[in-house]
Amino acid sequence: MNGPRTLIVGAGLMGTSMGLALRRAGWPVWLQDSDSRSAALAADLGAGDLLPPQGSPELVILAIPQSSTLLVSIEMNRLYPQATISDLASVKAKLQAEVETNETLRRVFVGGHPLAGRERSGAGAARADLFEGRPWVITAAEDVGRDHVEVVLSAVRACGADPVLMHARLHDEAVALVSHAPQVVASSMAAQLTGGDPQSLRLSGQGLRDTVRVAASDPDLWQEILEQNAAAVSAVLRGVVDDLTAVVAALDTLGKSTDSQVDKLVNDRAQVRDLLERGRVGHGRIPGKHGTAHVEYATVPVVIPDRPGALAALFLAAGEANVNVEDVHIEHSPGQPVGLVELAVNPSAAVSLTTHLKQAGWSVH
Amino acid sequence: MNGPRTLIVGAGLMGTSMGLALRRAGWPVWLQDSDSRSAALAADLGAGDLLPPQGSPELVILAIPQSSTLLVSIEMNRLYPQATISDLASVKAKLQAEVETNETLRRVFVGGHPLAGRERSGAGAARADLFEGRPWVITAAEDVGRDHVEVVLSAVRACGADPVLMHARLHDEAVALVSHAPQVVASSMAAQLTGGDPQSLRLSGQGLRDTVRVAASDPDLWQEILEQNAAAVSAVLRGVVDDLTAVVAALDTLGKSTDSQVDKLVNDRAQVRDLLERGRVGHGRIPGKHGTAHVEYATVPVVIPDRPGALAALFLAAGEANVNVEDVHIEHSPGQPVGLVELAVNPSAAVSLTTHLKQAGWSVH
Repeated sequence: MNGPRTLIVGAGLMGTSMGLALRRAGWPVWLQDSDSRSAALAADLGAGDLLPPQGSPELVILAIPQSSTLLVSIEMNRLYPQATISDLASVKAKLQAEVETNETLRRVFVGGHPLAGRERSGAGAARADLFEGRPWVITAAEDVGRDHVEVVLSAVRACGADPVLMHARLHDEAVALVSHAPQVVASSMAAQLTGGDPQSLRLSGQGLRDTVRVAASDPDLWQEILEQNAAAVSAVLRGVVDDLTAVVAALDTLGKSTDSQVDKLVNDRAQVRDLLERGRVGHGRIPGKHGTAHVEYATVPVVIPDRPGALAALFLAAGEANVNVEDVHIEHSPGQPVGLVELAVNPSAAVSLTTHLKQAGWSVH
Repeated sequence: MNGPRTLIVGAGLMGTSMGLALRRAGWPVWLQDSDSRSAALAADLGAGDLLPPQGSPELVILAIPQSSTLLVSIEMNRLYPQATISDLASVKAKLQAEVETNETLRRVFVGGHPLAGRERSGAGAARADLFEGRPWVITAAEDVGRDHVEVVLSAVRACGADPVLMHARLHDEAVALVSHAPQVVASSMAAQLTGGDPQSLRLSGQGLRDTVRVAASDPDLWQEILEQNAAAVSAVLRGVVDDLTAVVAALDTLGKSTDSQVDKLVNDRAQVRDLLERGRVGHGRIPGKHGTAHVEYATVPVVIPDRPGALAALFLAAGEANVNVEDVHIEHSPGQPVGLVELAVNPSAAVSLTTHLKQAGWSVH
């Protein structure tokens, strides 16, 4: 084993994926989760050991809900005062400010946020290549030791990600713009589909599918992210509302409509939750291929080199497995000459395709 | 030549594509366009003849801007009183109501709307397979002759599309929900990106790309569509605004923000236009592959059978051409066992890929 002794707290999608990536790079990894079944699944998948670490961990990664991160950080700092502590949470400034008030934690804590994820969650959805080619933001405070930053940077690189050093507040504003607000916008459009009849939805095209795709994401996860980054997300959405309100007023004038009353409901938590839920329901109502009801495909992710012939060879291999690929998604990977190709297939075909591709030497998970 | 003598008025993307499709099916087609260069290009592409029709046309298709459709319909009805007249415009109720007031036109006019399109426009972007497997709404009035409906249905089927008979008002409400409002929503989100710095946009992922993809569409085209369908689009957007306004208020409370003033600007046409423009600019700012600036890829569209091995064979053929496929899009085709695969490649490679695929027997355009 080479690499620092690493304890990952939290065996969900992100923690398990990181464990898989670090183990693949030869790091010694231990796993811990309040849900023993999640931890056992992650360990079975090869993401780390469940036994207590041999000696103190040198790096502790908190892959747990944002709301628990501060308290668990303090506890881990008390147990392992020498260890570097980092996290994977999507919002950084509030946590960073809280960390600054702790005299010992502030010297070892390095905030982290890998810009990676899936619409599915849990250890079962984890992949060693989840972070490959993706940006991973590091938000180090001024008085944190340089060696602590270095150990987190080496973990990020071991996961195949692209480290980006940013101020916590700038990070939060950036993800509000490119991720959190678009999530709410997609959900709000998809929510309107809940009232559409099947005849109308039959006219759906790829434009609508793309516009509302992320509305299928987990409402629990997004509820928390949006609350943690409320001010920055609100600022972006205010711009969207301004634009849409102006367009509605303009269309009403152009269409000679007299109905111009806009209700403003305020319901805090319940409102955010309700929108995310209805967005999810609406997204599921879009018909899939051949005019049939929406089919949940299984996704087979494959990492391929970014050069001529790679896709050809991959699809040849998929064809040899006699599997019909229903959809393809290529993840653009800023900063790395590899691509992530996601093959969507009928769930019944996923296992045989995966087996076949692996036997043919593909990096499939 | 088999099929009714058909005159297509308007040699843009839609008219030229329909000409290509009907000619492929063996129909005699004539083309007419107020821009003689567009008409010449369409004719050179094989979409029809420029000479006057031999004998009166039996079917006249208006593939022109929505705002000119009524006047040109009346003129065509005067010139060719026996001919069936149809159109391809995206909004139907207002036009249908106007047609109803014309004693002769109402007996021969059958409204049509193919649910197909591209983010590019003009005869040069036309494809014979543009309508394959896509819904094509027919909005016939009660007193139109059944034979006129039949000739339009045969044209729709000759284009490979899936005819859907609908009431004009229901059609307009449906496309407001699944196409027109999502376009505005995507533009309004993409418009916010115009203020984002490159460091923030570097954190963009596939979620954002998909959410705002259609914001790259032609503002002129969408300005007209939105105006024509103003009331129905406004009704859907009002729902989006209500949802977003409630979320903004909730986030402000949760984030303890005090800034809660929402400006409501009304500027009719200029507002709609401005939003579409800013959306387009914002969309273009999302970095492409490898963290570089957005690259405009050329798209090579290929129609393939929906069975195992077809994608494999296609990608094998692309690999043999030594072309690096940068992205793939599979268009889901309700009602037809074929798929449209769009291969995005560097513009310099598009011609050689197209040539190679055609030589290998692929249906590429």
